[in-house]
Amino acid sequence: MSVTAAQGFTAAGIAAGIKENGNPDLALVVNNGPRRAAAGVFTSNRVKAAPVLWSEQVLKGGTVGAVVLNSGGANACTGPQGFQDTHATAEKAAEVLKGHSAGEIAVASTGLIGLLLPMDKLLPGIEKAAGELSPYGGEKAAIAIKTTDTVHKTAVRQGEGWTVGGMAKGAGMLAPGLATMLVVLTTDADVDSPALDRALREATRTTFDRVDSDGCMSTNDTVLLLASGASGTVPEEAAFAEAVRAVCDDLARQLIGDAEGASKDIRIEVVGAATEDDAVEVGRSIARNNLLKCAIHGEDPNWGRVLSAIGTTKAVFEPDRLNVAINDVWVCRAGSVGEDRDLVDMRFREVRITADLSAGSASAVIWANDLTADYVHENSAYSS
Amino acid sequence: MSVTAAQGFTAAGIAAGIKENGNPDLALVVNNGPRRAAAGVFTSNRVKAAPVLWSEQVLKGGTVGAVVLNSGGANACTGPQGFQDTHATAEKAAEVLKGHSAGEIAVASTGLIGLLLPMDKLLPGIEKAAGELSPYGGEKAAIAIKTTDTVHKTAVRQGEGWTVGGMAKGAGMLAPGLATMLVVLTTDADVDSPALDRALREATRTTFDRVDSDGCMSTNDTVLLLASGASGTVPEEAAFAEAVRAVCDDLARQLIGDAEGASKDIRIEVVGAATEDDAVEVGRSIARNNLLKCAIHGEDPNWGRVLSAIGTTKAVFEPDRLNVAINDVWVCRAGSVGEDRDLVDMRFREVRITADLSAGSASAVIWANDLTADYVHENSAYSS
Repeated sequence: MSVTAAQGFTAAGIAAGIKENGNPDLALVVNNGPRRAAAGVFTSNRVKAAPVLWSEQVLKGGTVGAVVLNSGGANACTGPQGFQDTHATAEKAAEVLKGHSAGEIAVASTGLIGLLLPMDKLLPGIEKAAGELSPYGGEKAAIAIKTTDTVHKTAVRQGEGWTVGGMAKGAGMLAPGLATMLVVLTTDADVDSPALDRALREATRTTFDRVDSDGCMSTNDTVLLLASGASGTVPEEAAFAEAVRAVCDDLARQLIGDAEGASKDIRIEVVGAATEDDAVEVGRSIARNNLLKCAIHGEDPNWGRVLSAIGTTKAVFEPDRLNVAINDVWVCRAGSVGEDRDLVDMRFREVRITADLSAGSASAVIWANDLTADYVHENSAYSS
Repeated sequence: MSVTAAQGFTAAGIAAGIKENGNPDLALVVNNGPRRAAAGVFTSNRVKAAPVLWSEQVLKGGTVGAVVLNSGGANACTGPQGFQDTHATAEKAAEVLKGHSAGEIAVASTGLIGLLLPMDKLLPGIEKAAGELSPYGGEKAAIAIKTTDTVHKTAVRQGEGWTVGGMAKGAGMLAPGLATMLVVLTTDADVDSPALDRALREATRTTFDRVDSDGCMSTNDTVLLLASGASGTVPEEAAFAEAVRAVCDDLARQLIGDAEGASKDIRIEVVGAATEDDAVEVGRSIARNNLLKCAIHGEDPNWGRVLSAIGTTKAVFEPDRLNVAINDVWVCRAGSVGEDRDLVDMRFREVRITADLSAGSASAVIWANDLTADYVHENSAYSS
């Protein structure tokens, strides 16, 4: 049910002709109220796409009436014309939706960088999508934002009298701060925008921000949380925050499971860290080590590459106190050879690496993918 | 002529049986004086191999009489036994070489992490190598330190009455601080160890430290510079430093040209930076962007991926003032679409990326490689 699982929302997903292959490429999500509270988190890349620059401004007001999302073009590195196109997109949506103003319409785009969007396709597409808005349109919207995703991603959690649902896309350029992605979450809980903001930031910090498929940070990452208040229920803050976190976690796991060219999903858990920051730094360093990612692809429990990745960090640890397990076999103990590496069974898609720094009690989990010839192929040929 | 181009040095390279395939795997370089001055630079990885820990101590004395190098095993993450093995290696060399003490013998190892060396092969190998020492042995020594290198690497520069020569190995795990490698440089110039140290540090800073094949930092990187004084000539310091730099630059370029699985050598020049540190940070970020490395492999001048890599840095720049050229075609101007990307000819092995930050006058060059299916294959299967 995606973004329409919660009451008060309608959505649509259509083929506007932005993608040359005719696949769906335009999604519209509308908050029908009574509330239109919203929060957003955006890429920390300093080269930001036009829709990110636009939507950051929109979100400062804490109110979002609708979101226009397109695949088939990122509208990034497109200069003043790109920004004018995003502005025109919001104006067009405000015009066709009635009762909405452009300044409260968020825009998100995904696809190739450095190309202007075909506005002659996109603007009529918004009108068409508006005509197809439905309280059952969430799946179609989730399908329309796919790029190289092989499946669309949705998740829902129920609270007591309220719901949080959402959709996500993301397949390449997955990396922290945030994984490349467009995500729209909706809820019918009666929550104001500051509370939405707190819940969303805490949720993304430990979910999307800890997905590191290929170390590449996008120019377009956007995560939005919209509240309609249509359930009439004011949730308990902790329960609401947990539901938002659970939906984000579910979607983040789906992103890793569908990353470009990947054959393995790698769950890296760093334990025994002096601080959570140390655990995250070490987890990211392991997640980004190309040699290790190749080894995991080859089902080779090459713990030496884990240690060499840990060694590049500033985290607190002593080399001769490091322990590493791969799929629960402690192949490295005290910085040296541990249990027999032949005991490690790596046939399954999920691979678990545990790195114990023996320096404290903090921990963190980072998700990554292996590095494969398919990834190389898909990303050598993507723009051609 | 490698490490024996300079007077006062003998070397040997033999097959000791450390590698199961019978290829040469043990090199010995001896400084016959009259001076035995030396300087060394080692990996900044905090997980250091036993020979690195040993040789760092040896170099603190500023005197090195001989270097024992082996391929076929890195002796990294091998615990106390690994360190004892390195110590025994130095003791054995001191014993067979006469007139040398173990505390002045440097040891370097390369190969798989996490395996103990076969000392029953290595120690007799040292005796055998000592018997083959020759003032013409430099090439054989360079061959014996190869791992996945397809060719051995040597370089020589002549000064007025003196010579600097060297050998290097390195193919995977090439990344700054240092590129993975073993390098031994020799000179017959009459230079003391503090001056050697200054020349070597400045040379590696702008050569080996700016090679970033795959973003992975080794546990074993070692660069040594030995001076025999046999020419009887005290060189002018600047001329000597430049010769050392030129030999390092030559060897570094050879390392990139022979990196595992690479089909392109990428020269990334960052110009218009506010500081040299900014230029290096931006260059490294571009060098490590897997999506860009795939695009270059596919001969796709995907400048959007260059901008997204720049955007992840803390360097001084404004997104709308960034310019990017690929093979001298300015495909991105003012952060947006520039010249026609179809003008970029990427058929040749060397690809030049120029990133202009428009923020100052500092610059730096980083060398990298593309990301290929061959790299994935070679590093999925390396340990099996």
